Amino acid sequence: MVARKREDSEWRTMAQAHRVLILGGGFAGLNAAKKLKRAPVEVTLIDRRNFHLFQPLLYQVATGSLSPGEISAPLRGVLSKHKNTEVLLGEAAEIDPDAKRVTLRDGACFDYDTLIVATGSKTSYYGNEEWRQSAPSLKTVEEATAIRHKILYAFEWAERSATEAEAREWLSFVIVGAGATGLELAGALAEIANETLRHDFRRINPTEARIVLMEGGNRVLAAYPPDLSEKAEILVKRLGVEVMKGVMATAIDNTGVTYKRGDTTEKLKARTVLWAGGVTATTFGRTLAERTKAETDRSGRIIVRPDLTIPNYPDIFVVGDLAAAKEKDGKPLPGVAQVAIQGGTYAAHTIRARLKGNKDVPPFRYFDKGDMAVIGRAAAVANVFGLHFWGLPAWLLWLFIHLMYIVQFQSRVIVFIQWGFQYMTFSRGARLITGTGDGDAQGPPAPRAAKC
Amino acid sequence: MVARKREDSEWRTMAQAHRVLILGGGFAGLNAAKKLKRAPVEVTLIDRRNFHLFQPLLYQVATGSLSPGEISAPLRGVLSKHKNTEVLLGEAAEIDPDAKRVTLRDGACFDYDTLIVATGSKTSYYGNEEWRQSAPSLKTVEEATAIRHKILYAFEWAERSATEAEAREWLSFVIVGAGATGLELAGALAEIANETLRHDFRRINPTEARIVLMEGGNRVLAAYPPDLSEKAEILVKRLGVEVMKGVMATAIDNTGVTYKRGDTTEKLKARTVLWAGGVTATTFGRTLAERTKAETDRSGRIIVRPDLTIPNYPDIFVVGDLAAAKEKDGKPLPGVAQVAIQGGTYAAHTIRARLKGNKDVPPFRYFDKGDMAVIGRAAAVANVFGLHFWGLPAWLLWLFIHLMYIVQFQSRVIVFIQWGFQYMTFSRGARLITGTGDGDAQGPPAPRAAKC
Repeated sequence: MVARKREDSEWRTMAQAHRVLILGGGFAGLNAAKKLKRAPVEVTLIDRRNFHLFQPLLYQVATGSLSPGEISAPLRGVLSKHKNTEVLLGEAAEIDPDAKRVTLRDGACFDYDTLIVATGSKTSYYGNEEWRQSAPSLKTVEEATAIRHKILYAFEWAERSATEAEAREWLSFVIVGAGATGLELAGALAEIANETLRHDFRRINPTEARIVLMEGGNRVLAAYPPDLSEKAEILVKRLGVEVMKGVMATAIDNTGVTYKRGDTTEKLKARTVLWAGGVTATTFGRTLAERTKAETDRSGRIIVRPDLTIPNYPDIFVVGDLAAAKEKDGKPLPGVAQVAIQGGTYAAHTIRARLKGNKDVPPFRYFDKGDMAVIGRAAAVANVFGLHFWGLPAWLLWLFIHLMYIVQFQSRVIVFIQWGFQYMTFSRGARLITGTGDGDAQGPPAPRAAKC
Repeated sequence: MVARKREDSEWRTMAQAHRVLILGGGFAGLNAAKKLKRAPVEVTLIDRRNFHLFQPLLYQVATGSLSPGEISAPLRGVLSKHKNTEVLLGEAAEIDPDAKRVTLRDGACFDYDTLIVATGSKTSYYGNEEWRQSAPSLKTVEEATAIRHKILYAFEWAERSATEAEAREWLSFVIVGAGATGLELAGALAEIANETLRHDFRRINPTEARIVLMEGGNRVLAAYPPDLSEKAEILVKRLGVEVMKGVMATAIDNTGVTYKRGDTTEKLKARTVLWAGGVTATTFGRTLAERTKAETDRSGRIIVRPDLTIPNYPDIFVVGDLAAAKEKDGKPLPGVAQVAIQGGTYAAHTIRARLKGNKDVPPFRYFDKGDMAVIGRAAAVANVFGLHFWGLPAWLLWLFIHLMYIVQFQSRVIVFIQWGFQYMTFSRGARLITGTGDGDAQGPPAPRAAKC
């Protein structure tokens, strides 16, 4: 017998409480839910996934250092002590902002009193959707696994190549976009080639892999202060990565990248291309903008009011990557974890304040703790409260901060023991190629030298 | 520049050495390769996967305790110090035993002097291939992940069910087959329902899940001594699992299992059915039997000579699950890790002895250290050198032996810290549902109570 924990009558009573519906369990949505723990509201958190993903470490899944489970926390587990909160699996598809109702893709619908939309962003190929096929990006667990397979297959097929030219193509890697993600991927890839796989092959020499980081602008880490961009470039070059600046990719397929530098067009042959470009709003984000007639910025983010609500809809908060919020000086806020966390927290506090009858909640103010990007072992850059660090100090800081954050929600001390272990030994525990085992991510395998 | 490590001329010289080709990097194949480390042979190990899987812990991946990377070791990493060994990714498709040549699915071919076939077994649905769709089995990493998704989705959709009857179907689980795998799955599933998910839902009570272990024979763990079967049944029942003996599944689909008990046919409604039935030879195993005209047993295993070679082909060893080997008394050896490990080692030693001119290598003798099956925390049964243990002592023994084994090849101490942690807290770190996030493993999601 499956007894419902709550009787239907009791359930109806509870439904009288102020209903907060949160869409998305990322940094913004999860933090909003957490901050509503003891509020007199009924919270429903809906996500397509049953887990919260610690996205800043996703590149470590892509490069085989960590398993997806190690950077994820089941949403139910995180919120199991929140008795006023229920977590449901589903994907929002439609909204009627006047009737205050959200409909899921499977047809179920949810009425709300206050809605928090935190559905985030997805990768943008700047109108070249066909590039997605050849150049995966690093946004979801599945994409991270796909990148891992692509990288590992490349070395496998290089080993089985019939000619040196073919092997060279398999050992050429291009990462398009030199933001934080691009640098992380390039650095980790260099460490895989130079250290992890160093002694694992018989016919090829992994340390001779060519890793190219391509950037359209004139410096890496464009969002950082110029001196840190310079340092980051030095650090990544030290690992053997080639940095190409001021080049625009014009075509990407399974054989490489065609790019323009000034007036000349060239092709870089590489069997592995990874995309670390921009992001755009999710499908539901676009629907929300249409239904509420909200303005969006160039990348589809919804332009919100100073209190993170949509104009004319004070009961719809937009937080995280989907929101185009501004600092006091009008500077747009970046799509990073800190902005999402603080936005989610702000929405929760505003809801609490309004329920107490306080109508004049002060506008959202982003408290900028700084930024950091990691390139490799003992190699990072950090801008913390205006102080610039690089190299080992920045890396230790990065390690410490990520450690503190990830530990807090699941006692995942284990990740850090493991990390420490891997950083010492250069081993990578999660070097699995799963799937059909048939080279599906890479097309047909290269034939071996010995012909039949 | 990608310089080949070996010049072609050097490569040809080395090819003069005795060439040992090993197909499969499981317990049998990997151990054969390991034992040939300093032998005057050129070893090529070919596997469809780039990793060795520690299969006895696969059920922990299925039940969300461990990530696939934690029970796997990259074959290249394990064999990187074996300078006479190369590892290649590929799948054997054809063999010409007289020309001594193996051809891969991608067309590449390999000549050998001695061949070691260790391609293992795959799940058998006893002629009902259509059951595979609804009832995944526990043989590969992908299947383990599929089982994990199926289990976690079941609880999610139970929470979103419109009626109590529907929720009850989602909370009913059937495991077909009460061998070691079936018991492990049933026990772990009971612990998930009773402990891990206990406080995570609002509308359903996970501890009221119904878990049924179905067995055609008249006792669980049929391969064990009868007293341990009895103890195992007591232990698994103590966790709340229903044991149904003497019932034959006659139909399996997404709504449940139809079974026969004596002359009556009944149906057990359950949205989650897992298959823990028998195994059969791999496709390449069948090809090998045809080409060498070798006899096979009922489940397609090749009947080998006392030295594990195929009759008339003394240069083809068959080891591991694919071999139907016999003990001195004629009793067939079971398809377990220990038989595979010892078989692989024996093949390697025989090759070494033959190269030294020793033609009279003694036949393979299996040294039976015993068997153990784990049911849950502090619950296992073990038969070690004829001594029978159960409960906590058996479980500690199981833990210790698996610990020793897995640690040896990758310093994976971490798994055991993690394990200890999870056994204390009942938490499960790898409770992720990945994939399209759309209920793909489970059909359409159940609509929620509130209709639109």
